[in-house]
Amino acid sequence: MPATPAADSVGLVTPQREVFNEPFRLACGRELPGYELVYETYGELNEDRSNAVLICHALSGHHHAAGYHTLDDAKPGWWDHYIGPGKPIDTNRFFVVSLNNIGGCHGSTGPTSINPETGRPWGPDFPSLRCRDWVHSQRALMARLDIPHWAICIGGSLGGMQVMRWTLEYPELVRNAVVIASAMKLSAQNIAFNEIARQAITSDPDFHGGYYLERGTIPARGLALARMVGHITYLSAEGMMARFGRDLKAGDLTVGSEAEVEFQVQSYLRYQGSTFSRAFDANTYILMTRALDYFDLAREYNDDPVAAFSHAQARFLVISFTSDWRFAPTRSREIVNALVAARKEVSYAEIDAPHGHDAFLVPIPRYQAVLRSFLGRVAEELG
Amino acid sequence: MPATPAADSVGLVTPQREVFNEPFRLACGRELPGYELVYETYGELNEDRSNAVLICHALSGHHHAAGYHTLDDAKPGWWDHYIGPGKPIDTNRFFVVSLNNIGGCHGSTGPTSINPETGRPWGPDFPSLRCRDWVHSQRALMARLDIPHWAICIGGSLGGMQVMRWTLEYPELVRNAVVIASAMKLSAQNIAFNEIARQAITSDPDFHGGYYLERGTIPARGLALARMVGHITYLSAEGMMARFGRDLKAGDLTVGSEAEVEFQVQSYLRYQGSTFSRAFDANTYILMTRALDYFDLAREYNDDPVAAFSHAQARFLVISFTSDWRFAPTRSREIVNALVAARKEVSYAEIDAPHGHDAFLVPIPRYQAVLRSFLGRVAEELG
Repeated sequence: MPATPAADSVGLVTPQREVFNEPFRLACGRELPGYELVYETYGELNEDRSNAVLICHALSGHHHAAGYHTLDDAKPGWWDHYIGPGKPIDTNRFFVVSLNNIGGCHGSTGPTSINPETGRPWGPDFPSLRCRDWVHSQRALMARLDIPHWAICIGGSLGGMQVMRWTLEYPELVRNAVVIASAMKLSAQNIAFNEIARQAITSDPDFHGGYYLERGTIPARGLALARMVGHITYLSAEGMMARFGRDLKAGDLTVGSEAEVEFQVQSYLRYQGSTFSRAFDANTYILMTRALDYFDLAREYNDDPVAAFSHAQARFLVISFTSDWRFAPTRSREIVNALVAARKEVSYAEIDAPHGHDAFLVPIPRYQAVLRSFLGRVAEELG
Repeated sequence: MPATPAADSVGLVTPQREVFNEPFRLACGRELPGYELVYETYGELNEDRSNAVLICHALSGHHHAAGYHTLDDAKPGWWDHYIGPGKPIDTNRFFVVSLNNIGGCHGSTGPTSINPETGRPWGPDFPSLRCRDWVHSQRALMARLDIPHWAICIGGSLGGMQVMRWTLEYPELVRNAVVIASAMKLSAQNIAFNEIARQAITSDPDFHGGYYLERGTIPARGLALARMVGHITYLSAEGMMARFGRDLKAGDLTVGSEAEVEFQVQSYLRYQGSTFSRAFDANTYILMTRALDYFDLAREYNDDPVAAFSHAQARFLVISFTSDWRFAPTRSREIVNALVAARKEVSYAEIDAPHGHDAFLVPIPRYQAVLRSFLGRVAEELG
């Protein structure tokens, strides 16, 4: 953290924890005997409790979305560009709730937690999760915090899927829904990339069928590979070319040179993979990518997204990024078209950005302006 | 092979072998003490030896491009749709030469061959290869076959790179050059995908630093993963969606169902990876992907492709496919633009096809027509 935090930073934050002792029925048919949720809040709940914003995190995200945990933190939370006093998600006006989802590995109940029935980590025996399980557990947290409705549910990627599911599961509890770089269901190509990530993890001999914690090891090579696949596909070809080009880290390509050649992009990827593999749980990665694959907004509405969205009551903002090929603008336009056909209020912005899918995390002026405008209007309506 | 081979099949073919006992200097500065090349030929060399066509293979290709090796073969060679009597590369008119490149694993000298200095397989000690090393060894084969010049050099992907290099290394020996789904150099994204493939292989504990043959094992899991990454990225998102959609192989997505869900595309990828990992050598895969990464047509022409191509004497046909995102039409247009600026004769066809990079192997009517027209003209000129 900088010695003097910026005026638009939420500054130091302390994660909180809620314990839910009642059994929690999951979409897969199994039950968790109870669970804990770790979360952070930024800003103040107003008097009529009408200004709450729910942040839904993506595949590798967590509760720490803004500010710093300690004075020594080198980096702030993952969405700090967007959350803070005067920022698009303005903590002077909103009470922001950001949690780590169940199945996660940052403090909420997940595969690294102890299974009370066995006294050992859940590991691969943690139940299969669907997007709606997260929505239901977020609903429980909402009740615990005595929040009557969300002024805004907002999220990118897998987070956007949770936002959409919220508008169908609890239509009366969501006033505004912001769905960023998301899709109503994954394509075969997306599923295939997720499958490679899982294969990389499960074929690592240190995976031990998922029981690696009990063996005192982690499938670091497999998880690093999985992350590298994700990382490349969340960037765009243009963005990578602009950033790395064909620059060399070692060796040279002169004829007659025997020095081993390494490109900058290779070295960067290895570093990213290696860092991630020490910070993230492999079973969580498997659970989360499966939930992504399984998500299919309109499946139980006869595969008709118009019929699905006819239940929603929220006002929608949908955002996509031109160079995002994992969750391409076409996917966002499908959401918009279904909302329009269902006669819902929807705004759509396609942001010209070279950052691929990761654009949703990056400060981009037009994206910031679009969010600021939509969220500012919501804040004004709150009075 | 069908009981009665089709009239446009080259039928049964027998691979041949040439042994080169002289030392062979490589671009990396090292020398092979000698080498062997396995190749096939289809059609007859005409009287004035002017109708020879060189087929340059891609990453996972080999010499067996057309016909069948035995009556029991389930499948013909990898480019059988394009090579045969009456086919675009018409063996009634051309004498077609197709070899396995050095460094390969289908019979030519490569990492699985015995290093005469040690009496053990070369393995990871096989010298680093560049595209021009293949061109130089193909030149040696050409001399051995007493072919004065190539009527046509043709290849897709990495094969197209060899074709371009031929036109610069031996301009006077190439009359026509057909460059399909290729590029003058890889992008950072391409290098990154190749890096993941190599990491998958080298992080497999069965890789043993590349000395797996001596340990009596192969890095099957790593090679399968590498292939899966390649396979997905050589297809297009649209093509995969049309072929697999979100169809399930096992389980179901109904709420309350505990059966494990598997999508068709997952099962397909696993099968492809597993099959490939038993048929291909991991060290070859590493060598070939490195040669791809290192290829940079104009590097020693001051990074000026116009200056590079000014040396070429061939007439060019460049072909790309709309849905190919690994070697996108933009990359082919760069080749065409450089050739035009260098005042070379060039035709360009951008083929509308949903098959991604793999389109160059697929029978597509317009692609067949374009090749047939260009190659037919060459045949007519031969008289």
